This record gives sequence, C-alpha cells and structure tokens, in this order.
Amino acid sequence: MSGVNSMNRTPGIQPERLWGDLMSTAKFGALGETGMRRLALSNEDRQVRDWFVAQCRELGCTIDIDQIGNIFATYPGLDASLAPIAMGSHLDTQPAGGRFDGILGVLAGIEVLRSLHDASVRPAHPITVIVWTNEEGSRFAPAMMGSGVYCGAHQWETVAATCDKSGVSVAQALDAIGYAGEHEPGFMQFSAYLELHIEQGPVLEAENIEIGVVDAVQGVCWLDIKVPGVSAHAGGRPMTMRDDALVAASKIVLAVEAVASAHLPGVGTIGYISAGPNSRNVIPGTVALEVDLRHPDDAELSALENEVTAEIKRICPAAEVQRVWRKPPVTFDSRIVDAIAARTEALGYSARRMVSGAGHDAAHVAGIAPSAMIFIPSYLGLSHNVREYSSPEQCAQGATVLLGAVLDLDNLLLADSRTG
Amino acid sequence: MSGVNSMNRTPGIQPERLWGDLMSTAKFGALGETGMRRLALSNEDRQVRDWFVAQCRELGCTIDIDQIGNIFATYPGLDASLAPIAMGSHLDTQPAGGRFDGILGVLAGIEVLRSLHDASVRPAHPITVIVWTNEEGSRFAPAMMGSGVYCGAHQWETVAATCDKSGVSVAQALDAIGYAGEHEPGFMQFSAYLELHIEQGPVLEAENIEIGVVDAVQGVCWLDIKVPGVSAHAGGRPMTMRDDALVAASKIVLAVEAVASAHLPGVGTIGYISAGPNSRNVIPGTVALEVDLRHPDDAELSALENEVTAEIKRICPAAEVQRVWRKPPVTFDSRIVDAIAARTEALGYSARRMVSGAGHDAAHVAGIAPSAMIFIPSYLGLSHNVREYSSPEQCAQGATVLLGAVLDLDNLLLADSRTG
Repeated sequence: MSGVNSMNRTPGIQPERLWGDLMSTAKFGALGETGMRRLALSNEDRQVRDWFVAQCRELGCTIDIDQIGNIFATYPGLDASLAPIAMGSHLDTQPAGGRFDGILGVLAGIEVLRSLHDASVRPAHPITVIVWTNEEGSRFAPAMMGSGVYCGAHQWETVAATCDKSGVSVAQALDAIGYAGEHEPGFMQFSAYLELHIEQGPVLEAENIEIGVVDAVQGVCWLDIKVPGVSAHAGGRPMTMRDDALVAASKIVLAVEAVASAHLPGVGTIGYISAGPNSRNVIPGTVALEVDLRHPDDAELSALENEVTAEIKRICPAAEVQRVWRKPPVTFDSRIVDAIAARTEALGYSARRMVSGAGHDAAHVAGIAPSAMIFIPSYLGLSHNVREYSSPEQCAQGATVLLGAVLDLDNLLLADSRTG
Repeated sequence: MSGVNSMNRTPGIQPERLWGDLMSTAKFGALGETGMRRLALSNEDRQVRDWFVAQCRELGCTIDIDQIGNIFATYPGLDASLAPIAMGSHLDTQPAGGRFDGILGVLAGIEVLRSLHDASVRPAHPITVIVWTNEEGSRFAPAMMGSGVYCGAHQWETVAATCDKSGVSVAQALDAIGYAGEHEPGFMQFSAYLELHIEQGPVLEAENIEIGVVDAVQGVCWLDIKVPGVSAHAGGRPMTMRDDALVAASKIVLAVEAVASAHLPGVGTIGYISAGPNSRNVIPGTVALEVDLRHPDDAELSALENEVTAEIKRICPAAEVQRVWRKPPVTFDSRIVDAIAARTEALGYSARRMVSGAGHDAAHVAGIAPSAMIFIPSYLGLSHNVREYSSPEQCAQGATVLLGAVLDLDNLLLADSRTG
C-alpha cells in the first residue's frame, strides 16, 4: 500500500503496524466490541498517554508536557535551530465514541516517526508528534481545550478551574493522572502543523475518493432559542384558541433546514429539543431548541445567522434567540495544502479539496503556524458513534500522505530557511 | 347568589361555607400560594379523605369504602329501597395542580348535603357523595382509575398490583393510608350520577357564560410514534445527505395540527417529544412523539386517527405508529342533561350545552347509571396548573345548579319508580 519500501532505507508506513496500534490501544477505554469511552484526563486517558510516551521514548524522542497536559514528542532533526514540523491530534473520545476520531492522527504520527527511525532517516527539522488535551469537550467544556489554550484562544487560569459534573477541576484531573506539565502553553513554535483525521462525514465515501485535502474549517455559530406558548389541557382547549409552543418550534426546525439549504455548502442543525411540561395530554407551554449553524465563508455564516433569526421572529415574535458561540471559518495555509495535494497526486491516490465540517485542533493551531489537514473516508460518514470505522488500507493511505508531506515540507521549508 | 333561602327551610347553598372548605382543605398538599400537590393515596390524600369522612358523618351519612378506596357517603332518603342519586368527583391532584379540579365536585357535594341537613329536608332517594380514587393518574396509571374499576373498565386485581415509580403498589398504598375497603367495586347502584367540575378549558369564560350543561365527553385516541433517522455529526454531513429525525418529526407535529383543525371540534396535540441523542451538534437519529386525538363523534375520531396515521406514513414511511389507548365518546343521559338545563334556566344563569374536552369519572359512571356533568368557567381556561381558578360566585353557582338538579331528579325519578 505504501509507495515506498523501508528495506532500501526510504521510509515507509507499515499498514499492519499502524492498524495493530489502533486496535491494541483501543483496550484503554473499550466500550463494547467497537466503541470507545476514553474521557479526557480519565484513568483510561492516562493509560494511553503512558503508552504514547513509552513508544516515543523508544524512538529517541524528547518528551515535553505543558501546563494543560498537551504532550510533545520530538524526534530530533539535523538542525536543532529549526522549529519542528508538527503532526498531531487527540486521544480522548466521546462518551460513546469510536476508535479512529483523533486517535488515528496521533498513532499515524508515531508510525511516521517509526518509519523515519527504521530507515535511519534524519530530517533537517525536528519532527514533533502532539497529543492535544481534551479535544472532545465531553467531560470538560469547551471542546478543543488543549489546543485552544496553547494557541491563546482561552486563558489557562480560567480553563484550569473548569470543573466536570462531579466537581473535579481540569487542574485536579491533570494532577491525578500525572500530566500537569511545567511548560507554559505556546512554549514551542512550529514550522508547520499537519493533522490526519477521519472525515466524520459521508462525502469521500459517497464520491469514492481516497484522500480529502482539507483547505479550510467551517465557521460555527450556536444559538439558544426559547419558544414560549400557553400550557393547557389537550382535551379542553379548542384548536382555534391555542398557543402551542411545539407547533411554533416545529416551524422553526423546518425554517432552519430551509435557510441552511439555501446557503449550501452551509449546514444548519437543531440537535437538541426540550418541551415543557412534556406530557402527552398537556399542550406544550415552552420549548427550548439548540441550533448549530456552519459555513466555510464568514459573510455567509453571518447571513445564515441573520436569516435564521429573522425566520424565528417571524414565526414566533416572543421567541428569545441568544448567540452562545461564534467561531469564524479558518482558511488553512495554501503552501501546506498544496504540499499535501502534490504528495497525494504523486502517490496516485484519488483526492479532492474539501472543507472540514467538524472543528479540529488544527483550526486553533492555524492561528500560530502554517497548518492543514488530511482526511480519509468514514464508513457511512458515521462518527461520535461506536460504529465509526475506516479500513486498514484507508488508514495506511492517510499515514502515507502524512509521511510524504512531512518529508516534502522538510525540504521545502529548509530551502525557505536558507534563502530567508 | 342562591335562588333559595335556608331560613324558610328551602335548602340553599352557602357560598362562603363552600369557598371556606375549598380554601381550608387546600392545606392538605398545598404547593406554593395557590397550587396543590396531593398525589393519589399519599399522606395528603389520607388527610383530606379523613376530613371528608368526618364532615359527612356529622351530617348523619353512612360511609362505605370499596376495595380500591372509593368512598361513598350516603345521606339517608325517605325510601331506603331506592338506589341513591349520586354526586362526586376526586380529591387527588396533579403534581403541580390547582385547588378546584375534582375537589370542587366533592366539596359541592358536601355543601348540597349540608343544605339539605340544615333545612331538615329529606329527599325520597338516598343522596350519595362519592370520592373516586386516583382520577389524575399522576402517581399510578391509568387516570380515572377508581371509577374505571368500579364501573368494570379495569380489573381490580390488575390495578391492585400496579406500582408507582418507587415500587409501591396500589394495594400497598391503600393499606398504608387505611382506605382499603371491603366492598367489591360496583356494590352500590345509582339512580343518577351528577358531577360538577371546572371546565378546564377557555370556552365558558370567552363566551361569558355561567354554566356549561355537559351532554357528552369526547372520545380519545392515543398514538405513540417513533421517527427514525440517521444520527451524524452536525458539521460533517451536507444538507443534501441527511436523514434528520427531528425534521420529519416537526412535519408530523404540523400535520397533526392541520388534520385536527380540519375536523373541528376535534383536537389533536403532541404534548411529548424526545429526541436522541439530543445533543446540539449531532443530527437527531430518533424522535419519539406522543399524540392525543379527541373528537365527540366516534366516526370522526376514527377519521382523525386514520388521516393522522396516513400523514405520518407519507412524511416518514419508516415511522412506527402504535395506538396505545382508545376510548369512544360518551353521550350523557338526555333526561339528566335536560334536568340540569331546566334547573339552570330556572335559576336565571346563562348556559350552553357543551362537550367535555377532558375525561372525567362521569364518563365511566355513564356506563352503569344515567349521568351528566355541570361545568363552571375556568380562569383563562387554565387547569393542571397552579394558577387554576374559579371565583367564589362561580363555584356557588355550580353548586346551586347541582343542588337544584338533585332535588328535581329526586321528584322526577320518584315519579318513574311509582309508575314503573
């Protein structure tokens, strides 16, 4: 599957070894046959972190840990004065997640280091594999916490005091698993950052394409909506005298779908609904909705938000609409994107440019270093789901592009540094 | 307010006494300033039952209790061979209910007995005031349990073993409060049954009418609906590739409203909705809906059910629709209805014939005795709500119609028995 062969000292991915790591480390937080429950900074997270550190030490890496527990395993380059080329993702999962989301990006990073090590290849740049803390945000909010703190989106002191539902703070949880490091977030600079990830969507599989060259991450806008009505006995109140909050909320759900469909490739979702008093024979007197709007274009994201808000006010003038989060779209570095695209083409894999629908650590890192992402197909587009799956071949193809892009960038950026 | 005066030994309702009972017994399960939480067979239910029994004993009533705890307080008539004329309702409330639903019908019954007692009036028929056990169904399902068992709609043995959410059975709860009686359900026959109740709807208030002469109870059909979809990441799945269960469910909510509005005076309500996994950034993969359909005409109720089911299948062919309950409409006895109407007219109260939107114990009793109901206005139509309210004057007007109808029926049915 790899285009190169480690026997002739050209580094190459070993698909069986990468797959073996994916399957064997799944024991740290296994949920049923194929699922994972490895919450951030849990004992299972500690186990897989310990495994990661041990593997990287065997390859001669130095290990650095920052205050929020992000781990940096650095394989030495020929020129220690160059900022590392970094790869990474996360090892925590959703409460009922799969074996690939995030995990693939880290384990493929180890596989890249192993392939360099086995071939005794020493790049000019140090090569760093990063484990970002708490990407999922399931135990501690918000998501993408470790990369967010590292890249300056959140204050470390605030995040340190954030508690989970049982009152344990991030700082306490880091201490408990032994991953409260000394380094200040942002201590290390990167020449480039690459993140391999499963698509978490159905596009690559549906189009039968092997590699997604990700040039942007959609912007996100979250709205909380409260729809008022008048609660009353379902038998006693004529249809003509009702103010049914669920009827109004249903019109809002359909309006969000219609507005998003008119702003493709934007998406609009109402994933959460709660009605009160939520009893069959009582007309709902209140409904809460949580809206997720995304678009790769910032102006279009604003248009989505404005049109959705106008539709809500038209349907139910008394509805309350509150914006709870907005993150503008991120455009990845065109040179990094082009390097990935060129290597993919050279390897003979089918490819397409695409925008990431989901948020990723790379969206934060793009603020401090030239970054881009590589996607491989997800079975049925399933993710955040115990049925999440990508095949051994698909994983190996992604890792092979990652390895090739790292080596290509090592040359490209070295040329920069010499002319710079 | 009463058309008669107890000083001349014509029995008459005393509005202040009735209102005093309504307000003072509200201490047995008071919730905040105006609300009630008096769950069936709770300690609060025991307190108000004990109060009821003591009041009726003071008036010379005999007390009978059946196996399911229904209480029958009988004021002796001149002819013990005649089956009693009965009045009644319930003393249990919703978990966050009001001070009038059910309670008015029982306390007005006591007030009728007091007015007879004070005027030393002895009717031909015995007059029985009934407290039906667990009308609300909030602690033990189903609703209208006591009257349902009494009238043969449910098996006593099955109901006795029904448990609340903490595992206490109806039989255990009856024992615990001392209201497990000896009589078999159905032990007593009635010449007639009258139930005074608040409307629990907005019609009388909106039309500024004092008395509702209730000639029927709507039929009810309950459907459980499961709407399937495909759960997926809200960011990663394009609008064109979605199978969003909440979008389909929203179309179903609007379809139920449209179908019911085309079958007035029928009503259709979806009071319960639950989405899974119910997380903002995950497309809903499943939605459960609970539907309540009602119509006073049996054929129209079936048409409502059929059209709603067809719309659901058109919107989402994979949706599951299950009928969980159907109770045909009940038409009350025309002679009893006419007697109420004639007495209301004689008293000079404004009145209209109407169908009960809600279910009531009278709908069960109608199966074993000539029955009808009297409604008074509900403030804003509110019920199952701590803001439920009817004024002292409205309550007294209802009780005055009840008293008059009982006396009129005593004469009318006595004439029957003599010619019969």
